[in-house]
Amino acid sequence: MSDATTTSARPRVVIVGGGFGGLACAQALAGSDVETILVDQHNHHLFQPLLYQAATAALSPADITTPLRHILAQAKNITVLMAKVTGVDPAAKTVRLETGDPLAYDRLVLATGAVYSYFGHPEWEAKAPAPKSIHSVREIRSRLLTAFEDAERAKDEEARRGLLTFVVVGGGPTGVETAGAIAELARWTLKGDFRRFDPAKARVILMEGGPRLLAAFPDSLGDYAKAALEALGVEVRLGHDVEAIDDGGVTLNGERIPAATVVWGAGTRAAEGAAWVGGSQDKAGRIAIAPDLSVPGCDGIYALGDLALLKQDGAPLPGLAQVAAQQGAHLGRALRTGAPPTPFRYRSKGDTAVIGRRAAVFTLGRLRLKGRPAWLLWAIVHVYLLIGFQQRSVVMLQWIWRYFTAERGARLID
Amino acid sequence: MSDATTTSARPRVVIVGGGFGGLACAQALAGSDVETILVDQHNHHLFQPLLYQAATAALSPADITTPLRHILAQAKNITVLMAKVTGVDPAAKTVRLETGDPLAYDRLVLATGAVYSYFGHPEWEAKAPAPKSIHSVREIRSRLLTAFEDAERAKDEEARRGLLTFVVVGGGPTGVETAGAIAELARWTLKGDFRRFDPAKARVILMEGGPRLLAAFPDSLGDYAKAALEALGVEVRLGHDVEAIDDGGVTLNGERIPAATVVWGAGTRAAEGAAWVGGSQDKAGRIAIAPDLSVPGCDGIYALGDLALLKQDGAPLPGLAQVAAQQGAHLGRALRTGAPPTPFRYRSKGDTAVIGRRAAVFTLGRLRLKGRPAWLLWAIVHVYLLIGFQQRSVVMLQWIWRYFTAERGARLID
Repeated sequence: MSDATTTSARPRVVIVGGGFGGLACAQALAGSDVETILVDQHNHHLFQPLLYQAATAALSPADITTPLRHILAQAKNITVLMAKVTGVDPAAKTVRLETGDPLAYDRLVLATGAVYSYFGHPEWEAKAPAPKSIHSVREIRSRLLTAFEDAERAKDEEARRGLLTFVVVGGGPTGVETAGAIAELARWTLKGDFRRFDPAKARVILMEGGPRLLAAFPDSLGDYAKAALEALGVEVRLGHDVEAIDDGGVTLNGERIPAATVVWGAGTRAAEGAAWVGGSQDKAGRIAIAPDLSVPGCDGIYALGDLALLKQDGAPLPGLAQVAAQQGAHLGRALRTGAPPTPFRYRSKGDTAVIGRRAAVFTLGRLRLKGRPAWLLWAIVHVYLLIGFQQRSVVMLQWIWRYFTAERGARLID
Repeated sequence: MSDATTTSARPRVVIVGGGFGGLACAQALAGSDVETILVDQHNHHLFQPLLYQAATAALSPADITTPLRHILAQAKNITVLMAKVTGVDPAAKTVRLETGDPLAYDRLVLATGAVYSYFGHPEWEAKAPAPKSIHSVREIRSRLLTAFEDAERAKDEEARRGLLTFVVVGGGPTGVETAGAIAELARWTLKGDFRRFDPAKARVILMEGGPRLLAAFPDSLGDYAKAALEALGVEVRLGHDVEAIDDGGVTLNGERIPAATVVWGAGTRAAEGAAWVGGSQDKAGRIAIAPDLSVPGCDGIYALGDLALLKQDGAPLPGLAQVAAQQGAHLGRALRTGAPPTPFRYRSKGDTAVIGRRAAVFTLGRLRLKGRPAWLLWAIVHVYLLIGFQQRSVVMLQWIWRYFTAERGARLID
């Protein structure tokens, strides 16, 4: 088989990106006679909703990843290639790879997702990593744990105070979940482990530029999240924009806060992939797509998930895993039959955010849940959605264990 | 509290290294009134006997590590410091740290262990990493899995054959266990995951310079290990010395074998630490110690484990976790009372090596076990010895799951 030309009678589908959107598209094509190639620069599907748990030493990186080719092992029509895509040649209908021959396609699905955006300050990324990849969550975990280790050896109280101050930027689900998890790590997991300070005295500061946490949720749940975080000891600062981040701290509204560790969870923008096909992009770099998920003006090219901008009922669809997954499945079903895709319509199955070990919010239509019932729903749904029975059982076991003991199994500094 | 001077009435014990020896010494001192400081450059105790499982994607690195300060949390007389030691000043009775003030001691325990030795070819290390640290097992895991990924995209059969050839150097327990685990990965775990080749056709070659595998075990068990590995499809080459290792393969007895992945499991030498105190060293760099574990000529300094050379009944004690742990416990009990240590005597609790999922060898005195009974004994003992109940349950669950399915939960390329 050659990658450079398409030979089969049926059109060959190439999917770039093995996140929720690309994987759902591949799964909808599984077992058909459509030759399908899924290309990703990593060997694994990453369960992004639990990245903050890996960043805060609750789960191991491997617990939230599954090899793409293992998920698709039974689908003999699908080939998985680990390769970095560097561009698309729409005229030749090929995808350029970093190494090796270009990959020919008849239909191309772009699903490369989003990356964190630093509001025009790319230099902040090194100082304030965001929980986005396996690499970055290992970095965050090491920084968090090393700050406590260094505090045990600190020369004076002032140095110790800076080491024990943790700033989380961004009041969306990522920021809320990360701040809550750091507070729990300090207050419960590390309790009694140090001799020269009390880890419960660590300051965790969550900063949000807007007037409320969890802006995408109903106001009452945003207010609840703030109260629940404060009960955990997190300082929530609303209406505070970051002005500067340096190695020793952050500056906001003119005030400098010495903090050895800063975690980023604010805005996102479309990943590489949008630029490959030209087309119309919004200010977050997303490709404007048609309701059938095609990229206007690009024959045979589709885009979906966080990479794509599609309005529904006048508002852009949010950058959520379930939007990407529904779009991928919708497109995959159409590509399977060869018929043009019908217009896509998103149906929310509910949004969740977790504040702590026993607190969460859940909203679906007019339904609002908070506290323990929402936490339990969150835990069940997320374990169910994890791919691989072994991972489900291991994660469930770790959560049950942690629920009762507050211990974390992955306190590993790299 | 100042680290720079010792102030308490009782002598202060400083232990360098949180492996089996240093940790056992600290545990024997736990709860006493002896001020004890355990220094390690990492934050965790590493369960080295299972490193090969992390290298071959069976377990996550976090599964085989536990934070040292968490193990010792209840021992209020023990302070754990994460710091890199750079030397010892025996005259001033201080330990030099990479950052910060020197650390004063009254009694010093050196337990920094061993590193792999490349027989005078340090340049081989980058080409043939050894499963010795969290960092190196991640590297080995990535190389193993990437070789299979690259094979799916290989241009021709010759390139693919090199990518699918894995050479393991050294026929001791590490080499035997690693070769067996790679063969199982290829034959069972990856079965059905690739479209362009059959992973079971991967070549796994185990090279040993001596005439028999597992030289430290009775001959019959070495022969059994060879037969069991061959039944798994491993090519065992005895009496073969490595002459060269380059990026594309190895040369042995004049024959060049193209192989993208080479794993080292041959000789070891004492880690940094031996040179700090001078004293008599053997050719593997170990410090010759007295039967009471003290370093002759160095007042108040002890050495133990893989760093130390001690003969018993005319033969040097082997570099085993249980030797280090017994020495650490023996010394810790003496330091607890303040009495001079009595001569140490090693009592073997049995040696094991694992060949595959259902095969192992075990020897204790005249007892020899092999096959499934030895495997079961190995599994029970190793789960029992893992520190932390959560880790025990997670590892046990993963082993049970893997025993029946051959799946591996940590197929993560970094």
